[in-house]
Amino acid sequence: MTADLLRLTAALVDIPSVSHDEGAIADHLEAELAAVPWLTVERHEHNVVARTDLGRSQRLILAGHTDTVPVNGNGRAVVEGDTLAGVGSADMKAGVAVFLELARTVAEPACDVTYVFYAAEEVAAVHNGLGVLFRDRPDLLVGDAAILGEPTGAAVEAGCQGTLRLAVHLTGRRAHTARPWMGVNAIHRLGPVLAAVAGFDARRPVLDGCEFREALQAVRVEGGVASNVVPDAVTIVVNHRFAPDLDAAQAEHRVRDALAPALAAGDTVEVLDAAASAAPGLSHPLLAALVERNGLAVRAKLGWTDVARFAEHGIPAVNFGPGEPTLAHTQEEHVERGPIEATHAALADLLAHGA
Amino acid sequence: MTADLLRLTAALVDIPSVSHDEGAIADHLEAELAAVPWLTVERHEHNVVARTDLGRSQRLILAGHTDTVPVNGNGRAVVEGDTLAGVGSADMKAGVAVFLELARTVAEPACDVTYVFYAAEEVAAVHNGLGVLFRDRPDLLVGDAAILGEPTGAAVEAGCQGTLRLAVHLTGRRAHTARPWMGVNAIHRLGPVLAAVAGFDARRPVLDGCEFREALQAVRVEGGVASNVVPDAVTIVVNHRFAPDLDAAQAEHRVRDALAPALAAGDTVEVLDAAASAAPGLSHPLLAALVERNGLAVRAKLGWTDVARFAEHGIPAVNFGPGEPTLAHTQEEHVERGPIEATHAALADLLAHGA
Repeated sequence: MTADLLRLTAALVDIPSVSHDEGAIADHLEAELAAVPWLTVERHEHNVVARTDLGRSQRLILAGHTDTVPVNGNGRAVVEGDTLAGVGSADMKAGVAVFLELARTVAEPACDVTYVFYAAEEVAAVHNGLGVLFRDRPDLLVGDAAILGEPTGAAVEAGCQGTLRLAVHLTGRRAHTARPWMGVNAIHRLGPVLAAVAGFDARRPVLDGCEFREALQAVRVEGGVASNVVPDAVTIVVNHRFAPDLDAAQAEHRVRDALAPALAAGDTVEVLDAAASAAPGLSHPLLAALVERNGLAVRAKLGWTDVARFAEHGIPAVNFGPGEPTLAHTQEEHVERGPIEATHAALADLLAHGA
Repeated sequence: MTADLLRLTAALVDIPSVSHDEGAIADHLEAELAAVPWLTVERHEHNVVARTDLGRSQRLILAGHTDTVPVNGNGRAVVEGDTLAGVGSADMKAGVAVFLELARTVAEPACDVTYVFYAAEEVAAVHNGLGVLFRDRPDLLVGDAAILGEPTGAAVEAGCQGTLRLAVHLTGRRAHTARPWMGVNAIHRLGPVLAAVAGFDARRPVLDGCEFREALQAVRVEGGVASNVVPDAVTIVVNHRFAPDLDAAQAEHRVRDALAPALAAGDTVEVLDAAASAAPGLSHPLLAALVERNGLAVRAKLGWTDVARFAEHGIPAVNFGPGEPTLAHTQEEHVERGPIEATHAALADLLAHGA
């Protein structure tokens, strides 16, 4: 007999867990899981890991973050009919509720299962609980495939695109604006750079049947000296999202090549940060079985998620959760009973039958 | 017998007078002028005005500012041979020294003369001493033509171009940078705006024989929301220098027309400030006589100077001073004896013979 998953999600929403304040929800999950006889539970900081140890040939990781973005007048769960509103309801306490329910009810899964509930996904990467576990307790994250409960509307979003930020520093030569021909205006030099960005060959490769879609976008620009001075410096920051058939170094190379014709001696291009992409991973038998036996919709994940952390450690991973991705981080965040139960049913089937 | 004008300039350099601290130099000039029997001296704040009142048919204004930019290790006059170094030597205590010497020595000029020594030219327009006098004591600035002692290398720089600053606010629509096709990138929209700026028809009209040369330059740019957000706003500030055959409203109209094809609904163009141009004024008999009898080089003034304040009040004015304009505001500021004496000789001739 399955619990009321909407009520279970509501109970988790009612435990406040804005990033950096996940102590209470970690306590709650740890206590719930410790009461389950077939699980071994370990806690590291506010990250809780519960595992079966049945000697199965394969191990599946089900991972979800417990933190939420800051409350915006939506800190309490509000249930109306089959709809639950509240911060974190879609991103991703509904997914956490599904995993918790599976952990409490599936005593003899066809594959061993590692349930990971981690902190601090919604803030800077340095705090990320999954990253902390990979660094401090990689033994807890051994597995053959992983499913991340990020909101996908109960579809499978495969892999993720990588992300890269580059600062392009353009130079010029100062002069008085009444005699601009004595100088070189760095801001005017943005024109060809923006043309190169707009004309960038953003590829749409199809990998494991999923079409990815790259992008190159300017996200910040800043320059100027004084109101009567031809400026000698401007910086433009671009964000590149690249498909998982390239690694970050290859993607950086492509952007540098595209910008090169617009650059001059003295200009510099600086990598601000980079995060690896993740291949779709759908060829893994466990993930293929999830999709095929349940007839799930599959699409490429265009944003970046923690599936890339699993991929980086050689573990194929997909995103699969009940929330609607477009509602994440909005004041109107809510989740419906239907996709929660559908997600639960698909995963229960996977645990029951394995690959 | 003319005084040693280089020494006289050095004495003025040795009276510190960084903007907003012109009390001592105003006291000095006021005392010197009060001792001259053919002059009526009036002081308003730190601005000193001395006039002849001989009932001549024409009145010439000789005006110079007494303040300097901040000292940069060059606060004391250093004379070596015929060269004087020190802050303010070129801009424009050499010009002030020439005017002071004329005031003390020319008892019966062919035209009446108003000597104006004013404060706070090197700082924001609101403090400008000439502006203060036009506001509070316009009676002291009545005249038929004016000569401003700004550094011109002893050439006549006629009139001045106007200056106009416009902020162009471009709009867009936010989206995640992984799905930029859902939004409109305001920074990318800079491209056509910069093309319009680069392609602006910067005219080179010839007025009174002087070729002016207009310019339109971006001087500041700023935009961006976050590193993963397609930005919905960017601001670019442009500075337009326009020839004196246009007033500021006409010049603004031309810039707006040039930018219009690159703008979209929701964008705005805001005038940040505008300062009028000044026609060359060389057709006035007194100024024409200055040029012609002394065979002076004449060129258009491309920057903005206080001649525009005279022009605004219907008084034709030119720039004519001994300093080299390129040395103004530099640590190496200095002035040579030759152009000081040449400037003095030309003005002495003008006062002796009039138009």
